[in-house]
Amino acid sequence: MRQSATLIPTLREVPADAEVKSHQLLVRSGFIRQNASGVYSFLPLGKKVLQKVEEIVRQEMERAGSVELLMPALQQAELWKESGRWYSYGPELMRMNDRHSREFALGATHEEVITSLLRDEVKSYKRLPLNLYQIQTKFRDEKRPRFGLLRGREFVMKDAYSFHASQESLDEVYDKMYEAYSRIFERCGLNFRAVIADSGAMGGKDTHEFMVLSEIGEDTIAYSDTSSYAANIEMAPVVTQYKKSNEAPVELEKVNTPDARTIEEVASFLNVEASSCIKSLLFKVDDRFVLVLARGDHEINDIKVKNYFEATVVELATPEEAKEVMAAQIGSLGPIQVSEKIEVVADHAVKAVVNGVCGANEDGVHYQGVNPERDFTATYEDFRFIQEGDASPDGQGIIKFAKGIEVGHVFKLGTRYSEAMGATYLDENGRSQPMIMGCYGIGVSRTLAAIAEQFNDEKGFVWPQAVAPYHVHVITVNVKNDEQRKLGETLYNQLLDRRVEVLLDDRQERVGVKFADSDLIGIPVRVTVGKRASEGIVEVKMRQTGESFEVHVDEVESKIMEMLAK
Amino acid sequence: MRQSATLIPTLREVPADAEVKSHQLLVRSGFIRQNASGVYSFLPLGKKVLQKVEEIVRQEMERAGSVELLMPALQQAELWKESGRWYSYGPELMRMNDRHSREFALGATHEEVITSLLRDEVKSYKRLPLNLYQIQTKFRDEKRPRFGLLRGREFVMKDAYSFHASQESLDEVYDKMYEAYSRIFERCGLNFRAVIADSGAMGGKDTHEFMVLSEIGEDTIAYSDTSSYAANIEMAPVVTQYKKSNEAPVELEKVNTPDARTIEEVASFLNVEASSCIKSLLFKVDDRFVLVLARGDHEINDIKVKNYFEATVVELATPEEAKEVMAAQIGSLGPIQVSEKIEVVADHAVKAVVNGVCGANEDGVHYQGVNPERDFTATYEDFRFIQEGDASPDGQGIIKFAKGIEVGHVFKLGTRYSEAMGATYLDENGRSQPMIMGCYGIGVSRTLAAIAEQFNDEKGFVWPQAVAPYHVHVITVNVKNDEQRKLGETLYNQLLDRRVEVLLDDRQERVGVKFADSDLIGIPVRVTVGKRASEGIVEVKMRQTGESFEVHVDEVESKIMEMLAK
Repeated sequence: MRQSATLIPTLREVPADAEVKSHQLLVRSGFIRQNASGVYSFLPLGKKVLQKVEEIVRQEMERAGSVELLMPALQQAELWKESGRWYSYGPELMRMNDRHSREFALGATHEEVITSLLRDEVKSYKRLPLNLYQIQTKFRDEKRPRFGLLRGREFVMKDAYSFHASQESLDEVYDKMYEAYSRIFERCGLNFRAVIADSGAMGGKDTHEFMVLSEIGEDTIAYSDTSSYAANIEMAPVVTQYKKSNEAPVELEKVNTPDARTIEEVASFLNVEASSCIKSLLFKVDDRFVLVLARGDHEINDIKVKNYFEATVVELATPEEAKEVMAAQIGSLGPIQVSEKIEVVADHAVKAVVNGVCGANEDGVHYQGVNPERDFTATYEDFRFIQEGDASPDGQGIIKFAKGIEVGHVFKLGTRYSEAMGATYLDENGRSQPMIMGCYGIGVSRTLAAIAEQFNDEKGFVWPQAVAPYHVHVITVNVKNDEQRKLGETLYNQLLDRRVEVLLDDRQERVGVKFADSDLIGIPVRVTVGKRASEGIVEVKMRQTGESFEVHVDEVESKIMEMLAK
Repeated sequence: MRQSATLIPTLREVPADAEVKSHQLLVRSGFIRQNASGVYSFLPLGKKVLQKVEEIVRQEMERAGSVELLMPALQQAELWKESGRWYSYGPELMRMNDRHSREFALGATHEEVITSLLRDEVKSYKRLPLNLYQIQTKFRDEKRPRFGLLRGREFVMKDAYSFHASQESLDEVYDKMYEAYSRIFERCGLNFRAVIADSGAMGGKDTHEFMVLSEIGEDTIAYSDTSSYAANIEMAPVVTQYKKSNEAPVELEKVNTPDARTIEEVASFLNVEASSCIKSLLFKVDDRFVLVLARGDHEINDIKVKNYFEATVVELATPEEAKEVMAAQIGSLGPIQVSEKIEVVADHAVKAVVNGVCGANEDGVHYQGVNPERDFTATYEDFRFIQEGDASPDGQGIIKFAKGIEVGHVFKLGTRYSEAMGATYLDENGRSQPMIMGCYGIGVSRTLAAIAEQFNDEKGFVWPQAVAPYHVHVITVNVKNDEQRKLGETLYNQLLDRRVEVLLDDRQERVGVKFADSDLIGIPVRVTVGKRASEGIVEVKMRQTGESFEVHVDEVESKIMEMLAK
């Protein structure tokens, strides 16, 4: 591609609205432009990288046995009403009416469409399993679009759906897709982890998020410092074995704690460690109240509470509810002499507390000398968030935290959609069964942004070869100089003949501008055709290492092929 | 691809709602499924063909120097208000509000988006010309979506836009794009014509439609039986030279013609030929009235009237207006003794009428013995529709009519958008100038349908190799037979190794079903692995010709490569 014939509008300034590196550089290097909040055009270089990522995804989907189709963005509201999501999805789902006032959703995802397709077209177990994917534009009206392509309102996604007649078949395809996802993100050069994620009632092993590790990530990952274990912090079980201290139990007594309501205030007022305090939170679990206890230095994980009770909704009781149910305000609740109507559950760590402190269910009063089991009874489970320094749940190493950008998600859906929408097949015995489903998403444009976030330096992008918009950037220093111009053209055509992807800077610009643009764009190999063109000598420079050398034009081609093969 | 692992839901019945062959077969052969009126899913085979067409388009766009980008579907209303089309586009433009009640259009086309992009990013003549294209999903809320993919509400389009600093530069790129379009439709195997189309005030040579000749087409094309001349019938000039007959002029006289109002009624009542009658139509041309004359056997072309007067709106006067302006009803109008306020213009053919008939501007009365120039004056121009049998305007051959499906359109836009939206550049003298634009569209999914319409027989599709979903269909007659199954698999893998695109029918189905499906799908070469598998003999059959022969498996590969190379 000749730079004179394409549109690469580079900027020297950092755009005011771009907070993160990838967004700044994608705009500055002329890869994207914003059309509306969260809506972008991919300019020629951005489109090239997008296609490279799509091609990697396509190849790995094919390898995993997934077959490509293309579903529409316009989706009839009726389908979403069948699944129930028309009502539950919220304003992220963009809705509109056609000229006949029929309601439509703009596809935010395609479970409904594909489930209705399979419901109509597949009737027998003989036609299962099926694994279908598309690469398609999605619409989600995010409340706060931000970080450029990382959270947009119109974006490119690969979404796959699999349909099965048995759980084993789903497990098999899930594993293949998991593997395909790992290969995709590896090929993109990303530093990522497959992270155990929340799948609601279905249990942790049934869903993984693929997270690119990055400071700007919005999710926190708990990972082992020595093994491949990684989980969303909400999902990581705590396997710590707690031991009681040897301290002798003392007598239980009430103590006035005026104005001390938080753990910090109580611990400070009574001059004890937070780990000696027992935190008591009143939750509303569906339609009943439950008192959940944890050690003062731990945080209660409400997803664990929800999963333990197999509840639909878990939320903290309001101050009014606490007052009514426990006859005390929220800062003074505790497990001792609680009404039998209130179930008391506690994190394992609580059991090992000796001579602890807890609320007395009287405003401004706490107990001290609290000894669980002696002073109150509770059911013990794992109810807390994992912390840095905890043992890794797989028994290998200790836990560290990192921030992650979610680029992919594999999920065992089960029969959620097939049951709601009547997508059944006849099994070997002629009995009607709901299809068992899996779904598998990759944010394609988000993956591009995650790569951009990871591969840059102070001068601009440093694209990994697999997704670079071009492999070689030939720069003719002075296009008005005949020798330079001709040599640049010759080299350009030679490389094209070898099927090398080349960008030729044939613009009439100052060399400083050309080099700055080239660094910004970040193509792996740069060939500069300058003063020594008359001798047939050009300069080759690697963007990543900065390594450079002069070489005769007769050898430059083989030299480049060699470097690209590395 | 293994047929057992993909979704090809074939149907024996013709779908009730499918009127045309392409729609029927695309549904029956499992290439597409409808999601809503005018909204379709491309199932795996349909997606394959779509990709082939896209790839041809992409290659020819690159050859023509057009550069790919990708613009969004969500377009801010503000842009459409700047161009004025927010108000003029009508309900075809799908509109919606986001969660903040901001108005958006779903992209029906992208003139506004790309003009705003270039306005922001290109400031100098040095950066022009630019030629940019995208392959993208478009939305148009058609009043009556029909014929499957031929007129949908969500469809795939290639749209290109070029920007220039001179008319010559636009002409040059226009010619390149015209050539690229011809190559694209040739490579798709289509029987098409590049047709001169209406471009409003800009003159006929500035826009061409690419029409696939087809009985189901909605446009009528006038083409020469011997040259490449073709035009939308609205656009074809009439070049016929008319000669007066030798008949001696008789005296003008009034005659009562009670109840005779149409040309047919008058001609029949007076026992003359329609070609002796002078048809007089009163038009409202912008804000004045014009009487337009044509020979009774000719049709007045209001686009020619509009272009002649350089008018914005041309419409027939209402009966009330005629009564008021001419003091007669519409069936009795004529050019003799018309008020000077009414301009009279006539088609050239009228001038040659001798002793003709026309309305007398008195209800139920006509003149006979009418001789133009003696009895009235008029300005003569080409105002009629061309007819079959007329001389071709290029002087070669005579005109025939055909129906066409519009698959592409190239258009010299000029400065319509750049002026409205302020997309200017600085010329060599530092003066601000509006960019001169061209736009170039191809209905990609419509092209697929046009190919489908053209390439089929009574059994199903007969895809041309360039866009066939696969090149070879290997059918294992009985997959339970070890020899057959193994030979089928071997052949499948061998062909894949040679990079031949193969579909393997490995389903447990009756052979009749397999053959019927295979004919329906229409892959160019079929290889049947049946009873003679034990001897290593398979049957090769060409879908198009029906030609078939048996061949040993050792030779089948080279035989297939040979046939595919044809």
